[in-house]
Amino acid sequence: MSRATDTFVEQNQTRLLEELQDFLRIPSISTLPEHKPDVERAARFVADSLSRAGLEHVEIIPTAGNPLVYGDWLHAPGKPTVLCYGHYDVQPPDPLELWRNPPFEPTVRDGNIYARGSADDKGQMYMHVKAVEALRAVNGTLPVNLKFLIEGEEEVGGASISKYVAGNRAKLKADVALVSDTPLYAEGLPTLCIGLRGLIYMELEATGPSRDLHSGLYGGASPNPVFGLIELLAKCKDSSGRILVPGIYDDVAPPAPAEKESWQRLPFREADFLADEVGASALTGEPGFPVLERIWARPTFEVHGIAGGFTGAGAKTVIPSKATAKVSFRLVPNQDPQKIIPLFRDFVTRHAPAGVRMELRVLSAAPAVMVNPDHPAIQTAARAFSDMLGKPTVFIRNGASIPVVGDFATHLGIPSVLMGFGLPDDGLHSPNEKYNLQNYYRGIMTIAHFFEELGAR
Amino acid sequence: MSRATDTFVEQNQTRLLEELQDFLRIPSISTLPEHKPDVERAARFVADSLSRAGLEHVEIIPTAGNPLVYGDWLHAPGKPTVLCYGHYDVQPPDPLELWRNPPFEPTVRDGNIYARGSADDKGQMYMHVKAVEALRAVNGTLPVNLKFLIEGEEEVGGASISKYVAGNRAKLKADVALVSDTPLYAEGLPTLCIGLRGLIYMELEATGPSRDLHSGLYGGASPNPVFGLIELLAKCKDSSGRILVPGIYDDVAPPAPAEKESWQRLPFREADFLADEVGASALTGEPGFPVLERIWARPTFEVHGIAGGFTGAGAKTVIPSKATAKVSFRLVPNQDPQKIIPLFRDFVTRHAPAGVRMELRVLSAAPAVMVNPDHPAIQTAARAFSDMLGKPTVFIRNGASIPVVGDFATHLGIPSVLMGFGLPDDGLHSPNEKYNLQNYYRGIMTIAHFFEELGAR
Repeated sequence: MSRATDTFVEQNQTRLLEELQDFLRIPSISTLPEHKPDVERAARFVADSLSRAGLEHVEIIPTAGNPLVYGDWLHAPGKPTVLCYGHYDVQPPDPLELWRNPPFEPTVRDGNIYARGSADDKGQMYMHVKAVEALRAVNGTLPVNLKFLIEGEEEVGGASISKYVAGNRAKLKADVALVSDTPLYAEGLPTLCIGLRGLIYMELEATGPSRDLHSGLYGGASPNPVFGLIELLAKCKDSSGRILVPGIYDDVAPPAPAEKESWQRLPFREADFLADEVGASALTGEPGFPVLERIWARPTFEVHGIAGGFTGAGAKTVIPSKATAKVSFRLVPNQDPQKIIPLFRDFVTRHAPAGVRMELRVLSAAPAVMVNPDHPAIQTAARAFSDMLGKPTVFIRNGASIPVVGDFATHLGIPSVLMGFGLPDDGLHSPNEKYNLQNYYRGIMTIAHFFEELGAR
Repeated sequence: MSRATDTFVEQNQTRLLEELQDFLRIPSISTLPEHKPDVERAARFVADSLSRAGLEHVEIIPTAGNPLVYGDWLHAPGKPTVLCYGHYDVQPPDPLELWRNPPFEPTVRDGNIYARGSADDKGQMYMHVKAVEALRAVNGTLPVNLKFLIEGEEEVGGASISKYVAGNRAKLKADVALVSDTPLYAEGLPTLCIGLRGLIYMELEATGPSRDLHSGLYGGASPNPVFGLIELLAKCKDSSGRILVPGIYDDVAPPAPAEKESWQRLPFREADFLADEVGASALTGEPGFPVLERIWARPTFEVHGIAGGFTGAGAKTVIPSKATAKVSFRLVPNQDPQKIIPLFRDFVTRHAPAGVRMELRVLSAAPAVMVNPDHPAIQTAARAFSDMLGKPTVFIRNGASIPVVGDFATHLGIPSVLMGFGLPDDGLHSPNEKYNLQNYYRGIMTIAHFFEELGAR
């Protein structure tokens, strides 16, 4: 197998860095309307990159939200087709004062490039494009058929791509998807993610009195929606983290013994996880389940935020008229959001305290996704990864959700290779987000190898 | 007994209204620093009014907060001394768009004067001043000795007057205090308030992880301080409203059977209270206690506000690093805040969930206050009130707190006559606050009679 693409990457390091820097300079913050022009500029940047790399039928697809970018190259008859996914939008950079360099002035320090979006996901999606360029520069052609679908709404829910995938099955038909939006388990450890939790994200609103009341005049007889919401939420799980909504665990598929065993071989130390990552005085969670199982393979109920009543400085003796909370269930394999939602709705209705009206709004719902590690494309990716880093590839899960992976599975019937090159401490969504340059170059090489080996099968 | 003061009030109605309007035009909002000059202007207005009414030794007393205003008239040897209290500061007027007239452009409609502060408390405290003026105009002298102490921080906690009362016992020595900052139980029903609940107001802060965490990556193993706070608060009282902090009911002194009976004779309809005042779907509270007892004579635990995590539009999958709540206990007679606080502190410590650190901050603490309805001054006030409105005076309690009444009891050893002329629907702290003009004039007359009858004993 040719390693000429490695040489190409090594010889073009400076240009590959400069191009990424140009990409990172565009503040394509999808959640802030004032950055709409930057979002559109980033979409054009992606489209131009695809064209220059040799992809065809490149188009910027308008949506109700931010544009999608599509391109393909379909001249390898009989070879597999890979659908490459990534996103060009980024999180807001605040708090700005914590950045060592301005977030949209990418700066190289200690072998890393620091900028908002460097790891999440511009640096990672750009590797796909540059792998195509390397392969075409070296071989004049590509070993597999390729389709690129890049979105600009990943940080704000990804509604447009979800709709687009559902409505364009034929156009997007492929054998496997490639997604680079996850980290290595540890530096230098080739890692494929084969499981993501699902997510039902909801808003719960409690209303009581028709207006804010004076707690002196009405306290003792008036319902208090803040307390009503607290009462209800406290009933949703016990102090160990076990969810108390009846039926919620009925369909949970536990990880296979072999998978659980493989997790025990990962370089995980609970004390380091607590001290370096969580930073609290103790971990919590269901007794009898190791930490990795709790965060990767167990459903959770979480309260992300709560607001109601007076929370300014000082004192105000109010019984507020309403309160709201943001809550979610993380789902694991075999749990169906469409079964869970009515269970929870029923629970909320049955446990709403007297005098408090509860309204439950479901903002999004996606099931967990598992990829079969024995799938040939996953095995090929694992081999390419192992060869590059000189260690056996580990198969892990991730407790978070990448909804588009579920869409690919549901609508296109294909697995996703979740092959990312980030590191656990890259600081996604945080100040001083970084991406390791060595991983950027090795990522381009690895992806080129993956395409080659997939085409050689 | 002379009713010449009634005639004086009737003949001077227009001027008495205009002067009140001048007072109400001053936006003396104590909680907003930009209104500091207005607060000072209001203090000067009060001082000038006292001087013009014939009070002596009038002074504007600087404090760490807003100035106090003092004045006295001590030329009735052998007669009782009355300490008149009121406040010249007002609540902020927002939401402005709900006002029918600008809040600081007092407007007369349907026999009411609409303005911020009209009932709470400028219109009421000004009655005291005008009663003095009426008595001096008619009799050339006063029937009792009088001291006025007017504050400008009632809406922001009243710290300065509390300190001043404690430090100036000799100067403020009196036989009884007169406070007009409460409503009639119902229009036309002479009402004296003889009980106020106490209040311990606290802030509870929960901290968990050292920074906001991604709930996908850490959910299931990381403590969540929002949920920890919810768990703790839910343990503080049961769904009926009964407080679960051990020992909290130990010292509660229940109302005497005669007092409870008298409450049953009040024109109270639970259905109207629910529909017209609370506006929720049901009332709550301890079973076995009638509504008035629950709001007047039972301790409560209330959550006034809670904040933590993400509460904006849309979804953010965060495990926040901290959350806070504002909570309070209302206290009833015989409960000692200094006994309750350690009980609660202990409860918080014992029930803090694993991995969540709880910090409890006490912002204020004041016991309940009771006035003996058989006290001669109260009986005199009741008689003056009954004579004016032609009905027997009712003795009620108020579930709220007026901390200065406790200070008068503790430091000066005197009871307070809580004789207010507001109405339950005056809209204190709300848009379109009003004060009934008939009650303003009748209030001046009644207070003049009260002084006369007190001097005649």
